[in-house]
Formats: sequence, structure tokens, C-alpha cells
Amino acid sequence: MVKGSALASLIVLCWTTSLSAQTIYPIDRAEILAGARFDFKVEFPGPVDPARLKVTVNGADYAAAFGRGGTFIDREDGKDQSALILRDVTLAKPGTVTVDVSDGTQQRSVAWTVYDTGPRKAKNVILFIGDGMSPAHRVAARILSKGIAEGKSRGKLAIDDMPHMALVATAGSDSIITDSANSASAYATGHKSAVNALGVYADRTASPFDDPRVETITSLARRRHGMAIGVVTNTEIEDATPAAMVAHTRRRAAYDEIVEQFFVAKPDVLMGGGSANFLPKSAAGSKRKDEADYIAKFRDAGYQVAMTASELGASAAKPETSRLLGLFATGNMDGVLDRKFLKGGGVKKFPEQPDLTEQVQAALNILSKNETGFFLMVESGLIDKYAHLLDMERAVYDTIMLDNAVRQTREWARARGDDTLILVLADHNHPNSLVGTVNDDMGTTPNVPLRERVGVYEQAGFPNYPAPDAEGYPSRVDVSRRLAIFSASLPDHYETFRPKLDNPNEPTVKAGDDGTFKANDKYKDVPGAVLRPGNLSAMIGASVHSGEDVILTATGPGSERVHGSMDNTEVFRVMVDALGLAAAQ
Amino acid sequence: MVKGSALASLIVLCWTTSLSAQTIYPIDRAEILAGARFDFKVEFPGPVDPARLKVTVNGADYAAAFGRGGTFIDREDGKDQSALILRDVTLAKPGTVTVDVSDGTQQRSVAWTVYDTGPRKAKNVILFIGDGMSPAHRVAARILSKGIAEGKSRGKLAIDDMPHMALVATAGSDSIITDSANSASAYATGHKSAVNALGVYADRTASPFDDPRVETITSLARRRHGMAIGVVTNTEIEDATPAAMVAHTRRRAAYDEIVEQFFVAKPDVLMGGGSANFLPKSAAGSKRKDEADYIAKFRDAGYQVAMTASELGASAAKPETSRLLGLFATGNMDGVLDRKFLKGGGVKKFPEQPDLTEQVQAALNILSKNETGFFLMVESGLIDKYAHLLDMERAVYDTIMLDNAVRQTREWARARGDDTLILVLADHNHPNSLVGTVNDDMGTTPNVPLRERVGVYEQAGFPNYPAPDAEGYPSRVDVSRRLAIFSASLPDHYETFRPKLDNPNEPTVKAGDDGTFKANDKYKDVPGAVLRPGNLSAMIGASVHSGEDVILTATGPGSERVHGSMDNTEVFRVMVDALGLAAAQ
Repeated sequence: MVKGSALASLIVLCWTTSLSAQTIYPIDRAEILAGARFDFKVEFPGPVDPARLKVTVNGADYAAAFGRGGTFIDREDGKDQSALILRDVTLAKPGTVTVDVSDGTQQRSVAWTVYDTGPRKAKNVILFIGDGMSPAHRVAARILSKGIAEGKSRGKLAIDDMPHMALVATAGSDSIITDSANSASAYATGHKSAVNALGVYADRTASPFDDPRVETITSLARRRHGMAIGVVTNTEIEDATPAAMVAHTRRRAAYDEIVEQFFVAKPDVLMGGGSANFLPKSAAGSKRKDEADYIAKFRDAGYQVAMTASELGASAAKPETSRLLGLFATGNMDGVLDRKFLKGGGVKKFPEQPDLTEQVQAALNILSKNETGFFLMVESGLIDKYAHLLDMERAVYDTIMLDNAVRQTREWARARGDDTLILVLADHNHPNSLVGTVNDDMGTTPNVPLRERVGVYEQAGFPNYPAPDAEGYPSRVDVSRRLAIFSASLPDHYETFRPKLDNPNEPTVKAGDDGTFKANDKYKDVPGAVLRPGNLSAMIGASVHSGEDVILTATGPGSERVHGSMDNTEVFRVMVDALGLAAAQ
Repeated sequence: MVKGSALASLIVLCWTTSLSAQTIYPIDRAEILAGARFDFKVEFPGPVDPARLKVTVNGADYAAAFGRGGTFIDREDGKDQSALILRDVTLAKPGTVTVDVSDGTQQRSVAWTVYDTGPRKAKNVILFIGDGMSPAHRVAARILSKGIAEGKSRGKLAIDDMPHMALVATAGSDSIITDSANSASAYATGHKSAVNALGVYADRTASPFDDPRVETITSLARRRHGMAIGVVTNTEIEDATPAAMVAHTRRRAAYDEIVEQFFVAKPDVLMGGGSANFLPKSAAGSKRKDEADYIAKFRDAGYQVAMTASELGASAAKPETSRLLGLFATGNMDGVLDRKFLKGGGVKKFPEQPDLTEQVQAALNILSKNETGFFLMVESGLIDKYAHLLDMERAVYDTIMLDNAVRQTREWARARGDDTLILVLADHNHPNSLVGTVNDDMGTTPNVPLRERVGVYEQAGFPNYPAPDAEGYPSRVDVSRRLAIFSASLPDHYETFRPKLDNPNEPTVKAGDDGTFKANDKYKDVPGAVLRPGNLSAMIGASVHSGEDVILTATGPGSERVHGSMDNTEVFRVMVDALGLAAAQ
């Protein structure tokens, strides 16, 4: 009945992507905030004659449209390929912008949408990112921290119980699967990017530092309103998500340069792990390739420096503290299950790491001194690291920690009269699912494989974790009926059906010098352990990201824009709209 | 900083469930619509003296509160256990209701919330259920039916692009993992139930037909407003989700009795597969245990009966048709990938099955004749069946079909002035995830395992399905770069990394007479196939459900109640509120 008629008109005809030769950055269908800076670049597949080049913006010569001409590169990277680049331009007028490029033979067009914002609605914006936080982690966090009786939860997570919710699509410009770099960049800049890239469109040149840049919300917030900027994580501060708030590079692994970019940008609050790339090469624990001492540089620039929880508390309590650098471990900090209970991971080496809630409280104390408001990104970043390692308990505990940080922040915002837009979302999913419980009372006959203890449907029942403490954490994870969270992407590994109580799980080790991985024999002799052959390339030593939409929840002024199905670039748009960051404001 | 103080007060002290001896139905914390019928039952663990029995409702004797006394059963099921049961009671006054039960020795209390509704807002309610529809199916459906370019979707799914969205928790009264029976019951009745149970609390007696009942929305809608009722699916009509709209039984497999209950309830429109249990035992294809001919019975009761798409079209087109029974296959109908493209499954046997969009259009035509409005449940039920079978392409195509049905219905509602509440959700998740693409151009060296072709991150890129037809379906799924959707729950099976073009996947076969399963040798010799040992009990022959929240999207009058984190029982509440179905209305 409906066939053809109603539906046909809804299907766009332009299915296939144009395969024209030139590449133009920003890409087709880019959405650009009026007044936000970006680099304009055209890449030609071969050498072109600049005299025959015609580049127009809405029909006018591009140099007129952007106010100046760009640099023509005859042989880019020394190859038979020309390019035109013009950095740091802006477009002030909202509307559709068509860019036409012709080298006299080949023609390519892209269309951008330049958008305005409404008047400023929010004094502050706080973006919480649960790195890799997936639906399985949410429901497990709820079960553990709130309890469940006869199927009904005894309470709601602060991250879920918000007035507005949307599904956010995460694909990048190069792939349906995203990493934390291009995902966080989409949030921070409103532009799609590629795996491993931060604040740039990934161009074809070898250099990871010359790619066309797009402006971050931290730059805009400070440049337009003089707002304070905070970046808080429990991973290395140079890692993809925190770095994306400020940095511009094709290569997320360029930690030394990212530290340098942080120093140039000077966020008012910068907190996490990763001191190794702040320390000069000769210092113990350093991973820098040079002798620059960025801790000294930040201190000289007026920053309070905290290396422990107590130093953090003391620095944040000082009325005069307006800038703070907190570096609490050389690498990633430790998750809450290790810090508070198991004492595994790096806890013995760094016993005085703050909790994410303490980091956030300190950040709010300092940033809220700025009368013009602030932008703060808070990442619970180890959810992702643990999910990669198939260490589900640790991922769930760090989800509870994120929830605590969000609840505390919502209370803080409520006490101020709700002048703050609060967003909570993941940057990508992990293929993790809660399929039931592992029940040690099932399948106990000798020689029956441990998988017989995986209870599904009615056999799953309810887990028997102890009641949570005041922060929502059960004191034990090695209970006799525990959540069975499995991954759909697996490297070869030993499955033990048990939480790892000594240290975070290490499912694989390097198999040799060829870049491949094999199952870690460490778990071979755990009673009942079984070798599970994986479904990923042997080059992949961990579980991988998955491409489902992530869940965005929001409250506060401007959060009403959050609904339905959104692209990850629209998260930026929600934030800049709440802050009124367009040129016309 | 936040430790203790702010959080401590949020943690409820009543973590552990009361282990009192009596069991009371409805259960503790049940939410009951004012005026909705339910059976009240108390189960005592041993024999009790009725003279010592004291049962009060808000302090008053229960018989006074409910208007009449119940039946005391001295030895229930012939065992040393007493019970008290009182069927078909109602509570008219909103508020908290405390039920105290004492047998003279032991005491048990439960508290219920009786709630009112506001004035009626919606003329009609349409509940779309994508059975087992998971985030991976949604994103894959979007990629295939809308296309994606440089990471940005070319369009939105109708199921996603709605003004209101919530996360719905799915656990049942017996387990964190839900099946379609108790999930659909929660939507249809507002009460939690157990795996395999429909419209009842699962009590301890052996009979699957005496359990305490709770009233369905279809009963309420007809009883209170004289509304029309429609139940549409592409599974067997007796299957859990459609059955839950009407039936009351502990055992979802009781198909003969469910047909009888459908006949008693007489939904105005009833459509799906499953004619086998309508046909008398002696008829070809019958699965009934008796000679009752329910097709004849329905016809005698004034129903138009359609067995093919053309009969459906003809019946729906008749102005006088007010009741319709459509049964298009003896078992489940076939999914869209088989019906329209591959011709596998049961298509050769039942070549004239309608599409879900045709079923919905026919249902809307007939139901909208009722001036008092209608309630319609539409299930795309094979998403779940295919996900169980690890047949991801078929699951995704049936997600696209659901989206078509929803889009068409939204257009229908818009043309009427939006008098209809439309809800779309899954009933439970499957542990499926999109981890990348399978790329036949990767890992093509001889003897390299097929898993080397699983592209993740930037190696996933974008799939190369052909452009979709007018209904959103690509004409081929066996393309050289295809979506890699894997499951986190696996039985032993052969992984071929390829879509199944002949028939739906059959990953396992029975291993013997002990109820266990083994990998299906049918796929053993598919080039590159690899045996993947599973992570489930050998008693489980398929992938299983998972316990994450499902996504609810909604539009139309009353949809503003959809937000944040909801329990599955609250879906019922949203619907009855939109229809003003409480006693006081």
C-alpha cells in the first residue's frame, strides 16, 4: 500500500559521493559557526597552473570573500601535487556557502552551512565525557550503585535522570568507527575529523602539524567572552579526549607537542595524569624527547601545581588560586576500584591520587571565580581503557564515579540557580553487553566448563554484590553471583569468568616483533580458564570500539536543543548556542 | 571533598530485600492505575489457620477495602501451603496503599502506589515494538537506508527523529534479563512480571493459567472508552509480544490457550503469522491439540479473514470491514530480506505475505473507523529472531521495515492533526555491536584467516552496499565491504564472516537428546569458516538477550512524559495517561 508512493520521495538521489579530483577543506556539508576560525585548503591530485586556478566562494573570488589570498604550493610534500592553503579565516554571515574550485580542467564544489547562535543563555558549560561509556556500563552502574529489587531499580543515576536526551551518531570523516580523538574533536570544534586527528581535517601531507585547523570551543569561549577554561581527566592529560579541547594535530600520539599546545593555550585548570611528558628527558619517569620542563614553565606562568590529592585540595582552597595544573601520575591515573579497594594498577606508586569528584570540585572552585563564566570538560577516561582490556568491573566502577561527579556538579549548579548547561555523553561505544550473571553455584560438577555458570534469562536472577557504600561502590566485586558483561569484539585471550583482583586485566601480550598479539599466558592456569579465539585481526591486541550512537543527556539553559537523532558535530552547536558564541553576538 | 556528605544522604538504607515469609501480589512498589483490575493474592509458606489471618489494606480489613472477601485455600496445589486469593479487584483512590499480612506469627507488608491520570489527551495510541531492536541495528539501518558521506548521515530514521526520548529499564521481577513476554507485559499492564509470563504475576502453583492477573491496556481502552483494539506483528500472533496485549498466562508457549484468549478478547484487528494454532488438529499445517477451528470461529464472529497480502488489501478496502483477522503463515512470517530479495525462509511456501507497512496501513484503515479512538500495537518481531540466530543482515532489514512503518504512521497522524500518541521502542536488547566492516580486499593472502578482513577504526571505512531502493533497502547484502555486526553472547558455531544468502542462519543444531546444542556443520566447509567456541551453557543454542536499557522515542499528545530514565512499567503509564484511562476519568 505504501510501497513507492509515500517513501520514494523521501529517498535522496545523491547517494554516491562525488569522486571529483580535488579535495576541499572544510569538507562538503560542514557546518561552521559564524566567526569561528578555520583553515581553508584545496588539494589538487596533480600539479596545476596557478594562472588557471579559479576558486570562488558563493561566486566571488575566494580572496575577496575571505579578505586575503592564500598560499599556492606548487609541489606539496615535494610531490607532483599542488595545493592552496589559507589559514585562520572566518565567515561572518549565516547561510549556505558554496565553494567552487576549478584548475581549468577539473571542477569540484562543496557546500557549507554557516550558522549563527541565539543570545547567550548559559553562564557556564560543563561537558562530561564518559570515554567509551556504553549502555552495559550504565545499567551495571545503576544495579551496583542503586540496587534493584524485583526488577525495579531503587534509584536513578544522575547521568540518566535529566530532562533532555538524544542519540548522537559518532562516525568520523574516514570511517563508521571512531576513536576518542576525532570524536572529542567533533564535540570541541563542530567539525568531523579522522581517526587519530585532533582539531584538524586530516590532510594528505606527511607532517602531523600542518593539517587544516578548526577552532575549538575553548578558544572561542576565551576569545569572545573571556571565559575561563578547564580540562579535567583521569587519563593522561595529553590523551585524545582532553587534548582535543585545545590541540591541533593529525597525530594524537604527539604527546610532547600536545603539552606545548596546552602551554600556549593555557587552560585555567588542567588536571589528569601524564606528567611524564611534562618532565624534562633527564628527570625520572619522563617520556619527553627534550629537556623542556613544562611543570616549571606552567609554574612560572602563574599556575599552582598539584601532584597529589592533598596538594590539590590545598591549592583549590587558596582564594588567590586562579590557575592550576594537577598531574597525579606519570601515565594514566588509576580507576576507583584500584584506588579505593583493590590497590592494584599504579596505586602503590601514586597512592595519593584524587578522585574525579575531588578534581571536579577543585575545578569548579577555581573556574567559578571568573565572572564571565567558564567552559569545563570532565572526562572519566578509564572506562574506555578498561573496556579495551575486557576488565568490566573496573569500567563499571569508573562509570559510577562519573555519575558521582555529575550528581555533585548538578547540585552545585542548582545551588547557583541553574545558570550552567551540563551535558553528559560518551564519545563512542564499546561492544559490551550485560548478558546475565556468572553464578558460582551453577555448573559445579567437576570438569564442567565455567561457561555453564553463565546464567541467562531467568537463570541470571540478580547479582549479590554487597550494599554500596556512601559513594555507591560495593566493597567487593568477587561475589558468587556477579554481572556477566562480555564483549562482541575479542582478541585471542583466556576467559576466566572472574574479576581480576590483582591488577587490571591484560588479555594479550605481544606475540613477537611483527606487531601481532597473542593470549596472555598469565591467566592460562586460572582454574577453569578457557582460551577464546578472537574475531579480530591478530594485529589488534584488545577489544575495539563499536559504531552505535551514544547517549547524550542534558540539563540547564540550552539543553532543550538536545533531542532526537543528532550528529556528534551538533554537540558543539548546542554548546556554542548556549554561550552565544557566534560572531554576531 | 564530596565524600560522605553530599552522597550519603542519597543512599537508601533499605538495600536488602525483606525476606519475610509471605508473598503478596501485586508485589511491593507496584504502581496501579486507579480503577484497573487485578488479582490480589497472598501465598503463605506453610499451612495457616484462617482464624488467625489478618490482612489489611491501609489499616482496614482487606474485604472491606476491596468490597468483598477472597477465597482461602488451605493446601494450595495439595501441598502444606495456604493461600488467599481475591480476583478482579480495583482501587479507585490515588495514593499510597499499604497491605499488611499476618498469619498470627509472621508478618509481611508491601506498599503500592495507586495513580490517577490527567484528562485524555490522545484519541489514539500506537505502540511500535522492535523486538530485540538494539543500537547496532538502528545505526546499521540508518547507514543502509539513508547513506552516510564523510561520516555524516544523509538522513534520519523516523524512529529516531522524534521530540522525546528516554532510556527504559527492562529487568523483570525474577531477573536482570528479560524476555519478550514479561517485557511486553510490563508495557501492556504496568506491572513487572517474570520470564515467560504474560499479564500475570508468576505465582508458585503448577498451573500456568491461575496466576494473579493484571489488566491490560487493551481491556482498559475498550472497557472505559469503547476504543478499538489492534494487534499487528510479523511473528506468530500467539508469540509473546502480541499475546501480551491480551493474554494472561504464566506460560508463553501455551499457544492454543492464547488463541482462545484472543478469541474471547476479540481485538478488532489481529494480524501476523501463526495460523497453525488456529487450525483444527486434523487440518494440514495445524499445531493445535484439539479440533477447534478458530479461523471459522473468528469468521462467524464477524471477522474478515485474510491469508494473503491481496486478501488483506481487499478486506481493508471494504467500507464495511470493522474486524479483521490476518494470518499469513502457519509459523512466523518472513523478514523483508527474504520476502523482497533472497526468497529464502518460508517465502516459497507463503509467497503472498504482506509487508509490515501494508499490515499497518490496513490496521489504520479499519481501526480509525472507531469514533472513540483505538489502541494499536505493531511489532517488527523478527529483528529478535534473527539476532538470536546471529543473522545480522536480516535483523537490520527488518529494522528498516519498522522504520518505514513508523514513518508512514507519522505521516498518517500528521494528516489527521496529530491526535495520536506514537511510541517506538524495543522490548529488550541483544548483545550485538557494529565493530567495523568485513572487507574482502583485506587479508587476501592465501591461508590468512578471514578475521584478518575485519576492519576496525580507520580500516573499517564505509561499507559499499548499493544505493537503497525507494523503501530504503539496498538490493544486495553480499557486498565486498559490509557491516561487521557481532554478538557478545555466542553458542559454539561456525563463523563465516558472510551473510547467509540461502536461508536465515542456523548457527547450532541439537547435539543429542540431552538438550544441548552444537555448531551446525552446514557451515563447516564455507571457505574460511572458523569454529568459534561460545561463552554460554551448551543448553543454549543461540545468542541471548542482554540487559541494557532500551531506547524509547515518542511523538504526539502525551509524549512529553517521555524523558530521562524510566522503568518499563512506566511505558504503560505514559499510554494510560494520554488516554485518561483512570477510574476518575
